[in-house]
Amino acid sequence: MKDKKKGAQTLAFRHAPVILAASSIVGPMEGKGPLGEYFDEVRDDHLWGQKTWEKAESKLLEDAVLKVLQKAEIPKHLVDFLFAGDLLNQITVSNFAAGQLSIPFIGVYGACSTFTESIALGAMAIDGGYAGVVAAATSSHHDAAERQYRYPTEFGVQRLPTAQWTATAAGAALLAGAGDGPRVTYATVGKVVDFGIKDPNNMGAAMAPAAADTMRQHLHDTGRSASYYDLIVTGDLGRVGQPLARDILKGDGIDVSENFADCGILIYSEDQDVHAGGSGCGCSAAVFGGYLMHRLEKGDLKRILLVSTGALHSPTTYLQGESMPAVAHAVAIERQ
Amino acid sequence: MKDKKKGAQTLAFRHAPVILAASSIVGPMEGKGPLGEYFDEVRDDHLWGQKTWEKAESKLLEDAVLKVLQKAEIPKHLVDFLFAGDLLNQITVSNFAAGQLSIPFIGVYGACSTFTESIALGAMAIDGGYAGVVAAATSSHHDAAERQYRYPTEFGVQRLPTAQWTATAAGAALLAGAGDGPRVTYATVGKVVDFGIKDPNNMGAAMAPAAADTMRQHLHDTGRSASYYDLIVTGDLGRVGQPLARDILKGDGIDVSENFADCGILIYSEDQDVHAGGSGCGCSAAVFGGYLMHRLEKGDLKRILLVSTGALHSPTTYLQGESMPAVAHAVAIERQ
Repeated sequence: MKDKKKGAQTLAFRHAPVILAASSIVGPMEGKGPLGEYFDEVRDDHLWGQKTWEKAESKLLEDAVLKVLQKAEIPKHLVDFLFAGDLLNQITVSNFAAGQLSIPFIGVYGACSTFTESIALGAMAIDGGYAGVVAAATSSHHDAAERQYRYPTEFGVQRLPTAQWTATAAGAALLAGAGDGPRVTYATVGKVVDFGIKDPNNMGAAMAPAAADTMRQHLHDTGRSASYYDLIVTGDLGRVGQPLARDILKGDGIDVSENFADCGILIYSEDQDVHAGGSGCGCSAAVFGGYLMHRLEKGDLKRILLVSTGALHSPTTYLQGESMPAVAHAVAIERQ
Repeated sequence: MKDKKKGAQTLAFRHAPVILAASSIVGPMEGKGPLGEYFDEVRDDHLWGQKTWEKAESKLLEDAVLKVLQKAEIPKHLVDFLFAGDLLNQITVSNFAAGQLSIPFIGVYGACSTFTESIALGAMAIDGGYAGVVAAATSSHHDAAERQYRYPTEFGVQRLPTAQWTATAAGAALLAGAGDGPRVTYATVGKVVDFGIKDPNNMGAAMAPAAADTMRQHLHDTGRSASYYDLIVTGDLGRVGQPLARDILKGDGIDVSENFADCGILIYSEDQDVHAGGSGCGCSAAVFGGYLMHRLEKGDLKRILLVSTGALHSPTTYLQGESMPAVAHAVAIERQ
């Protein structure tokens, strides 16, 4: 049985699962960003031969899984389960990719928090002894998300300064019970937090309290201080949400002024005209699969807390005048 | 470590988690059906004081969780995790309910297979020692689903004979490591199976191969014969899909002629004008939470295999001419 002192909101892995490899495939704009060189693959356009953006995203997710298998030199039939999700209605991207991959499939949804949700579940399956190897993968596609959540993509509607840019990106992590690589030591499952924010062009503000809540809970449950981590990286609070989360934590006496980064800020440069930064299930997945995993493997990062954050609104509830609940899930990833 | 002979597609629980209680709340039409007397609550209309069908469904899911806590006499703060999902875009119903309940939340999506997916994950969390008590809950709402998947509900568009009727229903199960109640002994996670069926008015045909695939895999992995179970109950293949699944299994030498039922057929009577039967994430959840749990508690059922089945299409992919992938997850529930 797990150490009850740790608190049930945080899963403490006894034999911390190893991340054998991680992958990242991105679109042209993400490739031109500051992390471009770290991604496994940068694609030239938004369709890569597919008929629709939705199919293109599904191929992106499928390819991210195939890429991580190739990198780890693990054949597909050895993967026991695929944990995956995405932003599109009915997580259609993941469903079709899972059909192509033919790996037993657990579909999850946590908006942009889906990547760490998938890793948390995958780590539980490995550590609990229910699986030998699992893949956790998520994706997003700017054009497909834009037309679903906001306006027809071709409108090119003027964006607000607080708006975030859905990344065209996918990432996958391959987890196993043994092998070389950084390990998933803890996972903190978030509560849904709703501060009553109703503007889908300001997701950062809606997600910041959820991110702070999960981070606070994680530190409480593990007995760690924020400075334990070389880097605490939120999913995509962006330039609006990240300072808010920092301030909320400061109010709780938690100082993250030295080691707090955000995937939504890291993925684009300020001159890329993305306003508040990147977002999308693929954002933290690709930033982890490319940049963060590279730094963990190189050894200049040894302990990170990845906190993917999700705004859980839907276009329907937004139009009905409802607020935007949010959630964040945190995974501690550490190497010797 | 798990017994590798069982095959990783099937989770074998060492200390099979107990279902302490299950709940079911349904709409008026489901209340008038043959299982009406078994449900905890039958509601009079489709809004019960809420402003929208979406909010009404969210309340339904929240209330199903509160009801199961009440039945098990477990206070809410003892529930470590809520595993939940629904049919609406961005599983918005579950997100809002999780916000109200303030229980650490894992959002899942498997269309109408979501109930057994949630139970499988919840059982893994309990059996693996990561949680003491978890809730697994799903819901659907006829009017909310109708306008999202098909036509504006008020159209009252003529339905095809192969179409299924989304049930207005929610169900929840409360799982724990110890206590009285039937136990979840195995869970078989399905692969996504796509037979190329493109007609969303014939979900039964799309789901039947996935149901048969998971059932076949479950029997293979556990070494059991179909006759081991007093009842094998699919989620909602309906009157079109169930005979197809039976025939596919017969072709594989698996005889389920004596013990095969379907929640989508059980929930409505033939004269209720639902054509091929019921569907929706809430269908198998409420049929389990009401009728099946009652029979398990009474003891006239001792071993059941619940196989919730999901059609994984989205209205977008349907309009783009894509097929309907499908998945089914099976959980074995047994009592002494």
